[in-house]
Amino acid sequence: MNPTIETLLSHRSIRKFTQDAISPEQLTQIIDAARSVSSSSFLQCTSIIRVTDKEKRRLLAEYAGNQAYVADCAEFLVWCADFHRHEQINPNAKLGFTEQTLIGAIDGAIMAQNAMVAAESMGFGGVYIGGLRNQPEKVAELLAMPNHVMPLFGMCLGVPAQDPETKPKLPAQLLVHENSYQAIDEAALSDYDNQVREYYQTRTGGNKDMSWSEQISATLEKEARPFMKDFLHSKGFSTR
Amino acid sequence: MNPTIETLLSHRSIRKFTQDAISPEQLTQIIDAARSVSSSSFLQCTSIIRVTDKEKRRLLAEYAGNQAYVADCAEFLVWCADFHRHEQINPNAKLGFTEQTLIGAIDGAIMAQNAMVAAESMGFGGVYIGGLRNQPEKVAELLAMPNHVMPLFGMCLGVPAQDPETKPKLPAQLLVHENSYQAIDEAALSDYDNQVREYYQTRTGGNKDMSWSEQISATLEKEARPFMKDFLHSKGFSTR
Repeated sequence: MNPTIETLLSHRSIRKFTQDAISPEQLTQIIDAARSVSSSSFLQCTSIIRVTDKEKRRLLAEYAGNQAYVADCAEFLVWCADFHRHEQINPNAKLGFTEQTLIGAIDGAIMAQNAMVAAESMGFGGVYIGGLRNQPEKVAELLAMPNHVMPLFGMCLGVPAQDPETKPKLPAQLLVHENSYQAIDEAALSDYDNQVREYYQTRTGGNKDMSWSEQISATLEKEARPFMKDFLHSKGFSTR
Repeated sequence: MNPTIETLLSHRSIRKFTQDAISPEQLTQIIDAARSVSSSSFLQCTSIIRVTDKEKRRLLAEYAGNQAYVADCAEFLVWCADFHRHEQINPNAKLGFTEQTLIGAIDGAIMAQNAMVAAESMGFGGVYIGGLRNQPEKVAELLAMPNHVMPLFGMCLGVPAQDPETKPKLPAQLLVHENSYQAIDEAALSDYDNQVREYYQTRTGGNKDMSWSEQISATLEKEARPFMKDFLHSKGFSTR
């Protein structure tokens, strides 16, 4: 197994960091790795807002649902879908299509993952902060995002001050289909459910007793960020 | 520079492959790397459809706008946002929210990028096939995708039979903002435009003479897949 595969397989979210910084040279390598990814139609519709201002960090931590590591980590990057760059270059650019929202989300995410992998390969750890979409209009205002720019998620990076286990992920049997979509394999699901339950019991001293099926059922009982459609429209995304 | 960063920085899309296969063990490593990524709220809403059927490959190549490498590459993977898995587990799951479309696109993309990086670290090459969204309803039908499953993009993987240069990407100066969104730096843009023009002239023997600004302006002159909103709705995505 080569060192890159080892890095990829050992990923786990880090939510506790030492006070150590990421040096400018290291950050440059991380950003350069991000810049190297593919881009749909060469549109390059991602922007990264690096937040160094302490008060803005504090507010973002609050907006994300009081996630203290957003304030404390060495680097906090906000990944945005950005078509305002194109609008500045060509005020007549046709924008607002749902397809562009997809491109923005997809391109931003593959770019961010390269940054995560680069950071992890250097011994840093990190976590995605989807919670930035809890109050996206406040995030957009705080970071002065114009129309056609929206926050996708945040990313904390830094030196890990914890060493959690990797989480058991959906097995290939349930993830990969061949030639056509296949119905869920109940036996494989049941095995996986037991594996997740065991993981939680070990990690929480028996306080959390939940299978994956139970967990996702609970999550999907309520509406997820029901304001998102209106927010996208308000920023000029997915209007047609 | 560590070998992982080297792999990330040397990415370029490969569109010509030898006849060599990817072994089952190698494919397992690629899929395991993909499985290792973060997942929003542990929803794990991605499915991969591995297409080995030659006739389906031929049709997908055609649907994607006659991209022959879709038919010829060693492995072709279709990355899908999948909430039907959850629906099977809990028929009362609340689905259809625009937020779920974002999660589906983001999670599928970060997972796919791990697969790309894993493959590249092993000496393979690949290319994303966004063109699968040219005729998404035909792709969905061919691969028997039920409601709440949609194709995000395809991915060709295999042994490179070409060695293209890396493409000049948007410089950090234009990609990264600090603390608030910043207007485009005209001088940096002009430098980058020249760099892209030079890249095309070298690569095409002077036949293509285009800056990045010119290219994206041309791309955004017309509507991008204007049917996407209706397609998403028809598959139970972004309905609210």
